[in-house]
Amino acid sequence: MKIKDRSAKSETRTLTIKTAHGRFRTPIFMPVATQASVKAISQEDLREIQADCLLANTYHLYLRPGTDIIQEADGLHSFMNWDRSILTDSGGYQVFSLSHLRKIEDGGVTFKSHHDGSTHHLTPEKVIELQSHLGSDIWTCLDVCPPYPCEREQAAEARRLTKSWANRSIKAYNKTIFNSQLTTRNSQPLIFGILQGSVYPDLRREAAEHLLSLPFDGIAIGGLSVGEPKEKTWEVLDELMPLLPEDKPRYLMGVGTPEDLWEAVERGVDMTDCVWPTRNARNGQVMTSQGKLYIKNAPYRKDNSPLDPNCNCWVCRTYSRAYLSHLYRCRELLSYRLLSFHNLHFLIQLMKNIQMAIDTDTFHEKKSAFLNTYLKSETWTPA
Amino acid sequence: MKIKDRSAKSETRTLTIKTAHGRFRTPIFMPVATQASVKAISQEDLREIQADCLLANTYHLYLRPGTDIIQEADGLHSFMNWDRSILTDSGGYQVFSLSHLRKIEDGGVTFKSHHDGSTHHLTPEKVIELQSHLGSDIWTCLDVCPPYPCEREQAAEARRLTKSWANRSIKAYNKTIFNSQLTTRNSQPLIFGILQGSVYPDLRREAAEHLLSLPFDGIAIGGLSVGEPKEKTWEVLDELMPLLPEDKPRYLMGVGTPEDLWEAVERGVDMTDCVWPTRNARNGQVMTSQGKLYIKNAPYRKDNSPLDPNCNCWVCRTYSRAYLSHLYRCRELLSYRLLSFHNLHFLIQLMKNIQMAIDTDTFHEKKSAFLNTYLKSETWTPA
Repeated sequence: MKIKDRSAKSETRTLTIKTAHGRFRTPIFMPVATQASVKAISQEDLREIQADCLLANTYHLYLRPGTDIIQEADGLHSFMNWDRSILTDSGGYQVFSLSHLRKIEDGGVTFKSHHDGSTHHLTPEKVIELQSHLGSDIWTCLDVCPPYPCEREQAAEARRLTKSWANRSIKAYNKTIFNSQLTTRNSQPLIFGILQGSVYPDLRREAAEHLLSLPFDGIAIGGLSVGEPKEKTWEVLDELMPLLPEDKPRYLMGVGTPEDLWEAVERGVDMTDCVWPTRNARNGQVMTSQGKLYIKNAPYRKDNSPLDPNCNCWVCRTYSRAYLSHLYRCRELLSYRLLSFHNLHFLIQLMKNIQMAIDTDTFHEKKSAFLNTYLKSETWTPA
Repeated sequence: MKIKDRSAKSETRTLTIKTAHGRFRTPIFMPVATQASVKAISQEDLREIQADCLLANTYHLYLRPGTDIIQEADGLHSFMNWDRSILTDSGGYQVFSLSHLRKIEDGGVTFKSHHDGSTHHLTPEKVIELQSHLGSDIWTCLDVCPPYPCEREQAAEARRLTKSWANRSIKAYNKTIFNSQLTTRNSQPLIFGILQGSVYPDLRREAAEHLLSLPFDGIAIGGLSVGEPKEKTWEVLDELMPLLPEDKPRYLMGVGTPEDLWEAVERGVDMTDCVWPTRNARNGQVMTSQGKLYIKNAPYRKDNSPLDPNCNCWVCRTYSRAYLSHLYRCRELLSYRLLSFHNLHFLIQLMKNIQMAIDTDTFHEKKSAFLNTYLKSETWTPA
């Protein structure tokens, strides 16, 4: 992992990150394969879209199918037939948002499964072990992700636990790597700490200082995109980013929209993920170079042009708005795949365009040009 | 269209059928793209599966998106991006099974849409016109499809109307072809009459004689697979098939299962269609060379072998039972596509194997060998 380039005129930068399953350049958008599948999309589709790294979820895969089953299949790559990089989210967010009757103690968290109500106990050490069973390329630590809004006291307590768990995670990680005899650095997973602290600058600063005192390979910024106003997100990032060293990748969790990718990268973010492009696709909401398009709106019924005239993806080369409108109105399963394919292609291509803008020192011009067109378009509310 | 081969030892036969979109050999299984999409499957998938001819439904496409929209898109092939053959079902079956408050008169049928209750009127002439808008390769006549069981009187009345409508359909077809200036036989659609008569031999015989007096390119056998016991289906076919001439393709509508394909082809059937393989796939029910497999059964959770060890399809080359079991249990949309792909590949490959058995005069041995293995396996009820 090394910094390849840093634009002179802004905080934007590109890195090359190397994992056991290849290299990829940042900034990167990672499609979300929560349960070892990006919804409605195949791994062949993901290769065609040029996805370099997927995000899978340790909490979900632990509950179903169980990490033992994935371990028996020789790990997650083999299980789902994906030979590029995988980052696993620790599940902190899911434990706090999906599960019932959770009880957080210093040792770890006890919760009931959102599937069947069965009781489970996760510790920082166990989450590292589960990720070793999954065999993912980038691991994350168990954290406590506070909601928004959140009283200072609650945020401080979440921070305190996340800090203690980060210490234990690094120890468990080192022990696991030692025991696994992964002696070459190339075959070892990377490990990212998760930075919490809600919207409180001093808590975020403390968290950053602590994480940087540990040998993490990268910093995941959690606790944003949890319902706070967007200005708040950028305000927190503006305060936080100068504290982070240049040589560690910065992963902003759960972001998102084209406009947010520009804002995040402008502030020095290297990696993002979000279910947004696929979820929106399943709701008929499509991104195009001309702006947002709601496929169910009446004019598209008779429109034989592609979703996006400037897009070169398989769907735009092959199928018309009229056909996609028909499929979507019929709730044909194919429509979910085709719209998801296009939306993911759009965001990944957007990140490649942003990379190129950084390379050519034209980030700000390109950002303005993109947003001028994209944000002027129709909204996604039905016409 | 010509008979290429007829096995000496049985009624089995293979034909080559030529349409405006290419040639295909029979016996053939046609996947069902009711609403211009085979459920969960893309047209690229269908090409890979080697589907040669799809079935689409005039009734469904008339109601949604409307044949005007498909005509504006340059026809169904262009609309859905499919360059091989398409047969369109007239919609007789759907009018009688899906729509409400239908009223059948000599002129045609008035019914309310199953989508929005709007009132529509279909006549034999209109159904021909709609198919000319769709631009499908094989057209069928509007018919009256009686249910099972069905009193003789009702069956006779359905027969009477179907006969009168066949006469009018042929006239409308000739007029349409004349007006469309499709002067070469190669670019003209084929037209099939639909043979009704429920389970009454004399009605079926009358219907056959009448249809054969008209210049139909092929005979669609309707009113079977509507709930009657299988022995009844074969009994009707056994009586009917000797009445049909050798030089016209025989299309048995709505069949089906692997065992039914063998039985139908043995009796001289050339073409079949059914939603069964894709609907079953969406219910986790998979066909394999070893028999039926219900993907949700417990042993498959940890089974890293392919769905069918003797299958060479994309899904079997790529994904394991364990992964497919996981996807299905998670209700991931990808599971519907993968299981549908395999099931369709299985039936189309089975028909190609049947063709080869006919070519090599080994139909009966191959049929026994197949059924011995296939029928001995587990059933699809959960274990």
